[in-house]
Amino acid sequence: MPIEENDFIRLNYTGKIKANGEVFDTTYEEVADEAGIKVEGKDYHPIVLSIGADQVLSSLQDQLIGLEVGEEKTIEIPCENAFGKKDPSLIQLIPMKRFKEQNIRPFPGMPISLDGQQGTVRTVNGGRVSVDFNHTLAGKDIVYEVKVEEKIEDDVEKIKGLIDVYYGNPNINLDKTDVEIEDGVAKITLDKLAGFEQRTVQEVTLAKFAVARVAYENIASVDKVQFIDEYQEVVPQETDDVADVFGEETEEVPEVLNEDDE
Amino acid sequence: MPIEENDFIRLNYTGKIKANGEVFDTTYEEVADEAGIKVEGKDYHPIVLSIGADQVLSSLQDQLIGLEVGEEKTIEIPCENAFGKKDPSLIQLIPMKRFKEQNIRPFPGMPISLDGQQGTVRTVNGGRVSVDFNHTLAGKDIVYEVKVEEKIEDDVEKIKGLIDVYYGNPNINLDKTDVEIEDGVAKITLDKLAGFEQRTVQEVTLAKFAVARVAYENIASVDKVQFIDEYQEVVPQETDDVADVFGEETEEVPEVLNEDDE
Repeated sequence: MPIEENDFIRLNYTGKIKANGEVFDTTYEEVADEAGIKVEGKDYHPIVLSIGADQVLSSLQDQLIGLEVGEEKTIEIPCENAFGKKDPSLIQLIPMKRFKEQNIRPFPGMPISLDGQQGTVRTVNGGRVSVDFNHTLAGKDIVYEVKVEEKIEDDVEKIKGLIDVYYGNPNINLDKTDVEIEDGVAKITLDKLAGFEQRTVQEVTLAKFAVARVAYENIASVDKVQFIDEYQEVVPQETDDVADVFGEETEEVPEVLNEDDE
Repeated sequence: MPIEENDFIRLNYTGKIKANGEVFDTTYEEVADEAGIKVEGKDYHPIVLSIGADQVLSSLQDQLIGLEVGEEKTIEIPCENAFGKKDPSLIQLIPMKRFKEQNIRPFPGMPISLDGQQGTVRTVNGGRVSVDFNHTLAGKDIVYEVKVEEKIEDDVEKIKGLIDVYYGNPNINLDKTDVEIEDGVAKITLDKLAGFEQRTVQEVTLAKFAVARVAYENIASVDKVQFIDEYQEVVPQETDDVADVFGEETEEVPEVLNEDDE
């Protein structure tokens, strides 16, 4: 069965710049390592894609439709369908003075951040520095080498895949994450360790929303997504994960009247 | 009906140091203002107390039992039942050198933090600074003036009161917080704005756990507490709170393949 719109698949890929073969992104650890872009601690594995959810460039997504499980393909994407052409107005001359003020000595190729914009130094000529604020892949034709590893049929597996893609916490064990779909409601109880991360609530809310949106828009059995944090009395005899996390209840309930408001 | 163990009440109080009448904590805005301890932006109102949950000094809690709704009482608590006697070993001499290293000029009464401990400078004598690391209320006999405003009978109201006390986000509108108790499970759906706060997930998890623990230990109808984040498709015609928060869906689902891993 070839891949159709609304399918969920697991995809391995490597993205390269066509002109020089430079790898800018990949799901393969050894390829990332070789290209010098390996991120320490990252777990490299195929990503879950919901075809039609525009998780990837639409020019790439379109070319996945019709592939068979196990099939490999090299997909070429011209720059205008990838990260855009270079916009010459985004190449700007900046007085050297602004760099000196911050004790920065610019050199060609140096990545810099100016007024919240990311750019790369192109040339340094006396008092003026040319900085390119285009996306680093703008103007480049791209090649994706893809391999369809699997088509995901089970809706629970689809949702776990979305959690993997969007929630993005390497500490969450998906085997300890419970997903149940009932009467159109996908109920997700994350690995207890998810409650102990240091991201802000807002960041995590946006991640949850991303998971939910792709799920209710692309999985027919899902109309609504609930993330559930559950707490109940830990009976000492049946020590389980909950007991591991909350331990001996060393975290005291704050005593309200005991604190002086300083 | 006098207050009994396991009751939930709303309590107004003012805590004073017995010796000099200095107010160190209060639920009354005007009292806080007068005492110079008013916290800007804080909403002053009676706190919800679960009698028996040790939210407050047990010596205070014990004396609330037997009071009637509307009753006022002045409760004296000797220091040994309040914040303890002064521990002379927590008064330490610190070389002036350590302060100079950090460009700090100590003076009597100055609050300082040293190696993670909070203290107050007592005296400065030449090269040595005496710092008191006891609790600021240690050694002080305390007076609480309390007024029982209400006994809370409804279990949903009890839980909302606990959210107010422990969750501690002034932006959460309790009227927009939904609590349902069914078959022993208290299901809490917080005001949508709770998802956008800047505290870490861990801080909020501990707050949720505090709410849950007091609830399942002190409300007979509750065995288990669930906090539920729900997401569903927003149909543009029926604009409601959810639509307000997520607006025009300007927050894009991240495009996985579009990002180069820098």
